[in-house]
Amino acid sequence: MAAAKTPFSMPVRIYYEDTDAGGVVYYANYLKYMERARTEWLRVLGFDQSALTRDDGVVFAVRAASLEFLKPARFDDTIDVSVSVAECGRASLSFAQSITRAAALLCAGTVRVACLDAVKFAPCPIPERVYAKINGD
Amino acid sequence: MAAAKTPFSMPVRIYYEDTDAGGVVYYANYLKYMERARTEWLRVLGFDQSALTRDDGVVFAVRAASLEFLKPARFDDTIDVSVSVAECGRASLSFAQSITRAAALLCAGTVRVACLDAVKFAPCPIPERVYAKINGD
Amino acid sequence: MAAAKTPFSMPVRIYYEDTDAGGVVYYANYLKYMERARTEWLRVLGFDQSALTRDDGVVFAVRAASLEFLKPARFDDTIDVSVSVAECGRASLSFAQSITRAAALLCAGTVRVACLDAVKFAPCPIPERVYAKINGD
Amino acid sequence: MAAAKTPFSMPVRIYYEDTDAGGVVYYANYLKYMERARTEWLRVLGFDQSALTRDDGVVFAVRAASLEFLKPARFDDTIDVSVSVAECGRASLSFAQSITRAAALLCAGTVRVACLDAVKFAPCPIPERVYAKINGD
Repeated sequence: MAAAKTPFSMPVRIYYEDTDAGGVVYYANYLKYMERARTEWLRVLGFDQSALTRDDGVVFAVRAASLEFLKPARFDDTIDVSVSVAECGRASLSFAQSITRAAALLCAGTVRVACLDAVKFAPCPIPERVYAKINGD
Repeated sequence: MAAAKTPFSMPVRIYYEDTDAGGVVYYANYLKYMERARTEWLRVLGFDQSALTRDDGVVFAVRAASLEFLKPARFDDTIDVSVSVAECGRASLSFAQSITRAAALLCAGTVRVACLDAVKFAPCPIPERVYAKINGD
Repeated sequence: MAAAKTPFSMPVRIYYEDTDAGGVVYYANYLKYMERARTEWLRVLGFDQSALTRDDGVVFAVRAASLEFLKPARFDDTIDVSVSVAECGRASLSFAQSITRAAALLCAGTVRVACLDAVKFAPCPIPERVYAKINGD
Repeated sequence: MAAAKTPFSMPVRIYYEDTDAGGVVYYANYLKYMERARTEWLRVLGFDQSALTRDDGVVFAVRAASLEFLKPARFDDTIDVSVSVAECGRASLSFAQSITRAAALLCAGTVRVACLDAVKFAPCPIPERVYAKINGD
């Protein structure tokens, strides 16, 4: 399995649904691509979020996001979305993420995610085996 | 309260989020506007869907939709979205819906909605007072 | 290159963005997955829509869609989205499409697409080489 | 007409389309509500963005956004989305925005928007009458 501290990236194809009347990708969608990449990063580490909810009773919720939109992606582009763990606490995780097309940086930002009890929506510890894996224990 | 068989319509403003690189509203979004109108139609009849789920344990799920996209709506347009009950059975409802801008018909279609048990997702009867209201008893 | 009449299908992963409070995929999103599959089908035939707009001045616009929603897809599912040409006229195309998860049929429908002049948005012929390819000439 | 420095707010109703499998509003959608509010704020000042593009050849593009997601909105909620100009330069604008439900603060953040030439997508001055209005000259 992958080491958690190794940067991860995945390609995302841009479809018509992703664009707006400016002819470019609608900026709020970059948050979606970043989440897709975090989901696949976690899957590569061996964890499906649907299983974590079912078996451990937790969900991950985005608590903060800060993004800069530098250049637009366009219909038919393939972009690369990276994930890098900036910090992993007991109950939350911060990611540095970027979106590139070839050598061009399109969007960069940070996303903070909290681990929540799936029923009460209250903060709770990241399941131990997930925490250990991310911290490379 | 409104009579259920009276056609209902509501205005919807088009924002940037609704458009695509063709410069017009992305067609799948018309399904969303039609749902907004069904939601408000039901609210005008006296029923909030969140309360129906909490108190009656039911959700409404779209089972079929058939749409024609005739003319495009554009950014900043205000469109009117109509709802008319075509048929109301014990466990499902069919609607005829249309979307217009001034005199122009932009989109027309039918949507069939089933009443489901909110937990099992199995078909179940429309709550009696909702059924009575829609059928004008 | 692929023969146009051969059915084509592509996998689509379901992310959080795709779901709704019912815990399943929001039905309007199936139209997006069907479009992603048509886009990739056309790409496999050798045609990028961005190039068709730039070089031939045409866009494809959805004119009608008719869908049945049979079973829900859920977060983390991988679904298969198929494309099959039902009819290819001079200026429009009809597709039969289905969405499956393993042996289960989740959604099936037809989508009619018109070829439009990208500036005037008026119907125009499908570019000859695209038409020939689709019809297997 | 409204004075630009006066805070502006508008209600937004939450529909099914806005929610995710967590049972709450999908966080990326808060960016959309904030944009709807900026659009209506500008309209109240006397400016439609579609007219600004047609007549002045400019579009406004989001360059940066920083959001905190504090409490979730849910299906059927009505939330209030506020707009306040933090800074208005010659070619860009910064907004402080918040989203509340009754007394509860759900989401707060800042959004920076640049004025761009609608064709070249290069930075350009905010049209003079818009700038004057916002700065209350």
